[in-house]
Amino acid sequence: MKANPASDHVYFNDGFKCSTISISTNLTEPTTNGSSNSVGSQGSKEFILTEDGKKVKPPLSTLDWTRSWLQDCKRRTFNRKTLHKRLPIFEWLPKYNSQDAVGDLVAGITVGLTVIPQALAYAGIAGLPVAYGLYASFVGCFVYIFLGSCKDVPMGPSAIVALLTYQAAQGSWQKSVLLCLLSGFVELLMGLFGLGFLIDFVSGPVSSGFTSAVSLIILTSQIQSVLGITAKGNTFVEIWTQVFHNIGDTRAGDTVLGLTCIVVLLLMRSLSSCRIGPADPEECSPLQRAVNKILWIVGTARNAILVVVCCLMGYLLHSEEHGGAPFRVVGDIPPGLPSIQLPPTSLSANETSNGVAQGFVEMVHSMGSGLVVIPLISLMENIAICKAFANGKSVDASQELIAIGTANIFNSFVQGFPGTGALSRGAVNNASGVRTPLSNIYSGGLVIIALLFLTPYFYFIPRPTLAAIIISAVVFMVEVKVIKPMWRSKKSDLVPGVGTFVACLVLPLEWGILIGVGLNVIFILYHAARPKLTTELLTTQSGVEYSMITPDRCLIFPSVDYVRNLVNKQSMRQNVPVVIDASHVYGADFTTAMVIDSLISDFNQRGQLLFFYNLKPSICSIFEQVSAAQFVVYYQEQQLDELLKERHYVQKRLETA
Amino acid sequence: MKANPASDHVYFNDGFKCSTISISTNLTEPTTNGSSNSVGSQGSKEFILTEDGKKVKPPLSTLDWTRSWLQDCKRRTFNRKTLHKRLPIFEWLPKYNSQDAVGDLVAGITVGLTVIPQALAYAGIAGLPVAYGLYASFVGCFVYIFLGSCKDVPMGPSAIVALLTYQAAQGSWQKSVLLCLLSGFVELLMGLFGLGFLIDFVSGPVSSGFTSAVSLIILTSQIQSVLGITAKGNTFVEIWTQVFHNIGDTRAGDTVLGLTCIVVLLLMRSLSSCRIGPADPEECSPLQRAVNKILWIVGTARNAILVVVCCLMGYLLHSEEHGGAPFRVVGDIPPGLPSIQLPPTSLSANETSNGVAQGFVEMVHSMGSGLVVIPLISLMENIAICKAFANGKSVDASQELIAIGTANIFNSFVQGFPGTGALSRGAVNNASGVRTPLSNIYSGGLVIIALLFLTPYFYFIPRPTLAAIIISAVVFMVEVKVIKPMWRSKKSDLVPGVGTFVACLVLPLEWGILIGVGLNVIFILYHAARPKLTTELLTTQSGVEYSMITPDRCLIFPSVDYVRNLVNKQSMRQNVPVVIDASHVYGADFTTAMVIDSLISDFNQRGQLLFFYNLKPSICSIFEQVSAAQFVVYYQEQQLDELLKERHYVQKRLETA
Repeated sequence: MKANPASDHVYFNDGFKCSTISISTNLTEPTTNGSSNSVGSQGSKEFILTEDGKKVKPPLSTLDWTRSWLQDCKRRTFNRKTLHKRLPIFEWLPKYNSQDAVGDLVAGITVGLTVIPQALAYAGIAGLPVAYGLYASFVGCFVYIFLGSCKDVPMGPSAIVALLTYQAAQGSWQKSVLLCLLSGFVELLMGLFGLGFLIDFVSGPVSSGFTSAVSLIILTSQIQSVLGITAKGNTFVEIWTQVFHNIGDTRAGDTVLGLTCIVVLLLMRSLSSCRIGPADPEECSPLQRAVNKILWIVGTARNAILVVVCCLMGYLLHSEEHGGAPFRVVGDIPPGLPSIQLPPTSLSANETSNGVAQGFVEMVHSMGSGLVVIPLISLMENIAICKAFANGKSVDASQELIAIGTANIFNSFVQGFPGTGALSRGAVNNASGVRTPLSNIYSGGLVIIALLFLTPYFYFIPRPTLAAIIISAVVFMVEVKVIKPMWRSKKSDLVPGVGTFVACLVLPLEWGILIGVGLNVIFILYHAARPKLTTELLTTQSGVEYSMITPDRCLIFPSVDYVRNLVNKQSMRQNVPVVIDASHVYGADFTTAMVIDSLISDFNQRGQLLFFYNLKPSICSIFEQVSAAQFVVYYQEQQLDELLKERHYVQKRLETA
Repeated sequence: MKANPASDHVYFNDGFKCSTISISTNLTEPTTNGSSNSVGSQGSKEFILTEDGKKVKPPLSTLDWTRSWLQDCKRRTFNRKTLHKRLPIFEWLPKYNSQDAVGDLVAGITVGLTVIPQALAYAGIAGLPVAYGLYASFVGCFVYIFLGSCKDVPMGPSAIVALLTYQAAQGSWQKSVLLCLLSGFVELLMGLFGLGFLIDFVSGPVSSGFTSAVSLIILTSQIQSVLGITAKGNTFVEIWTQVFHNIGDTRAGDTVLGLTCIVVLLLMRSLSSCRIGPADPEECSPLQRAVNKILWIVGTARNAILVVVCCLMGYLLHSEEHGGAPFRVVGDIPPGLPSIQLPPTSLSANETSNGVAQGFVEMVHSMGSGLVVIPLISLMENIAICKAFANGKSVDASQELIAIGTANIFNSFVQGFPGTGALSRGAVNNASGVRTPLSNIYSGGLVIIALLFLTPYFYFIPRPTLAAIIISAVVFMVEVKVIKPMWRSKKSDLVPGVGTFVACLVLPLEWGILIGVGLNVIFILYHAARPKLTTELLTTQSGVEYSMITPDRCLIFPSVDYVRNLVNKQSMRQNVPVVIDASHVYGADFTTAMVIDSLISDFNQRGQLLFFYNLKPSICSIFEQVSAAQFVVYYQEQQLDELLKERHYVQKRLETA
């Protein structure tokens, strides 16, 4: 399918309408191969990426980036297919089979055994009594079954969101519950308005820096429980200062138990990846397979096992005469399910720390940016799970926002604090062979059972054990490993990464992530402002020298004056006709049009010739509306000779070396 | 110079080092034409824009966008050539000739006749006694001669900067003078650090919107002087409210004189473009030429003429018994030059509006963002003049910042308020045939003469006349004309344009321009986040079908998940090998590398083949450091067949329509 060499670069386009000359050669016989389904590979690269081009195929032509966002929103909201998409349960429930049922049951129970100790522990991160962790762990699961689009997401409390909750609500359960309601509404609205794309602006390095810093802060906040001391503070530095200040109060029992638990947990964690016998499971004997399975289960359910053992220990070591166990325990947990009630919307004087009653407005005001940060970070964590196990399936961030938002709204009516899909349990869920979001029903059910029957026994759970569970989970979230590939692949990405990390440690978290995103945005703006130009001295087929200048990206307002300066500078040095190769220029704006107009005037005043090559028709029409001077575009290399002849150009000797 | 068709797309590059296969065909005989000075036009388009490519020529290869900004700063500061550049007078003074002298003299006097009435008027915009306008108009001129890089710039007060001064200093002369010193320092520092590029981020539409809004605000602020009433306020709406509130106090004398002056000025303005006789000056008779010249002079010096006439009228109509003239006059102006003294750094109790003494810190604090906004807007106005008359010469924004900054620092020692190159006088300067910045010496000299000898006569200048001068100047700065081409060329640019205009009218000016720039930045981010993909179903030379997906711009973090989703979606629809044509991809980051790695895993899991075509070696090396999976790049179309053969690919029937 070798195309005719003479028409190698012919592309049928409407661009000529804005050229001041009309060249008819080859244009009346376009070789674009009417049936775009089988364009020869020889001609495949010569096409111009154009919105009005004939080669753009239907499937992706709808991706036209100029379509308005509002239209998109409207389409999303009032579309039958969309209504199905908004209730993903209709997708998988009709196809549900016994294999799915088994997978979901196993995964649901495994996650349930993980979520109960985690819920108790994460309540501590949020500064709340442990019972609130359980309250936050079941209603959301049931909601997610209907609205969730990702099978691996286990709704419930997460360490990061718990920390953000603490920062916004300062450990008041009333504020935490109200925050759960309000952030749920914010998430729901963001989902309905399709704002899920916002997290696209959190780059990999920023996300790593943020997660690492948060992990360190959470780890720091748990040191006090392991040591049995008190250390309050918002930032990393504050808490460590307090820890060192109060280090003298260290309780031996707590410290020994806490450190032991951490070591045991880390050892048990490594069990889940241990296996005996041959590497291929097919070749294992039944015994080997059973042992491997048991190792995996012990490793995965390590939190639950440790809590049971330590709880038992707490019960046995408990003696009334010594004032309890040799370590601090969780203490009384109100038995039974939480009552269903409206979230509190005001605080009486004795419910606040300063003894002044607060109304709804004051409560919301005290939460500040948490109302925006919590939804965004919740989504970030949730989407991280979806992406990790999507296997190429596209992830619908807006639907996930709707699911998390609704789950949190319902959560707030049973005194839950904000939750999302927690990354650590997502991995457990996937590894346990989850098949659909229905697995959530089993983990939610386990939490209800725990609330109904197990709360009396939770009294004896040692606090250092819960702290150890948190520490041995978050210590692996400090992403040290990512630095090396980042350094080797793109060093400049370390700037937002390390910037976010440091900023999150020394400033409030929301400032940290804002700084990281800001640094990244500056990189993007710099990219847009300083395109790379390559210049070549070429000769036409008839041997006339000309200079070809090729910008490598769009010409928009921050860059176009820079480009004008460079093109002028370069052109004045070599007094030959100049061609600007616009093959890579995919965008332009009104400012570009004005500056290109000035550029053409500059050339006219010098009496130098300036042509544009391969300028997209859509950009051509932008220029044409502004240009008082006439600008000349051509699309085939051989046309250049004709253009030069028309302008009576005679090659001069080069004046410069 | 027809290149060998078989090697049509060969380009020598280091990219193959990261490909998992090695194809040697044609690579050992690169046809890049060692001497890059004469690459055949047939091969000119197949090159890859690469940082390490051999085709990048020295003159522009230094434009490498990855060079660090700090290095650049260092180079700029400690370079011999640069020191010359920092004192542009050494450029033009040695070449100064008699023609230059005549041109500068005529232009200098013409500008001088314009600046005196404007200075008196603009002092009113800044809320200061008229004398301060003159104080601000001479020292800067002398400084600019040494430091200025643009012949057309007439240093002195400008309407826009006067308004910003009023907003920051609230009409206190002490604060205005201190503001002049401090903004001068900020400008100087910005210039030395090379921050002139910041105004690149103010696009044409934002600049138009800002200028138009400022013009309307200035016009509004002068309505009160024309009507002879008092109306105080910061924003457009506030002032108009006051005007309507006090409209009953209108003074007939002021109104009649003011409106008459406006009409006369507009008529005189049109004189400057009137000419009699033939269009070509060469064909005119001497009489016709003389008449044309006089018409032009009258039109250009209209402000001075009107002030003289009205001043005379004020003197003649002045009668002690009626308490002065029938209109308000300027009143006493302290005679002589201002004393040279340090700018005030504190305010005593009776110098402030609220009767509380202010120290240096309080004064600076009260100026707020003015300290940043005034330098940026000053530079914007100044650069607008430079660009308008640069004729292709590049404009050095940093040097202009240094010049304006130093001028303002010196200005502040003679009680001047902040100034810059005023756009209106820049046009007069250019039209009068200015040749070098030396013209500033004549206009500065005229201002000194006025201060020494003319101040007693300025007493009788009617205030409505000064207001009329301002109004008839700024009314043409409302850029209504720009809307039509903007609408026709790029409608989306109306959003930042109109946004800035409205925001500047209803909010403080600095907020207005920030909103405009913010809107523009959102457009850039959207561009970066949503690249356009085109897809084509092609066949290789041996007839194997494959899908070619071409992104049209860089793949960086906000877009790369979107691209992964689309590529997966499209590829799942058509189960054929997929090639990503990266010819237009000029940049990538660490996030891209991670997502491309996931994309490759997605394809591996589906058992679908994925290749990259024409990926720049620099980007290749970014990916290679992250990719656990191996990715395959090729640079010549015919290699695809070999790649498919190596992978034992057998074409299947298409499953979908």
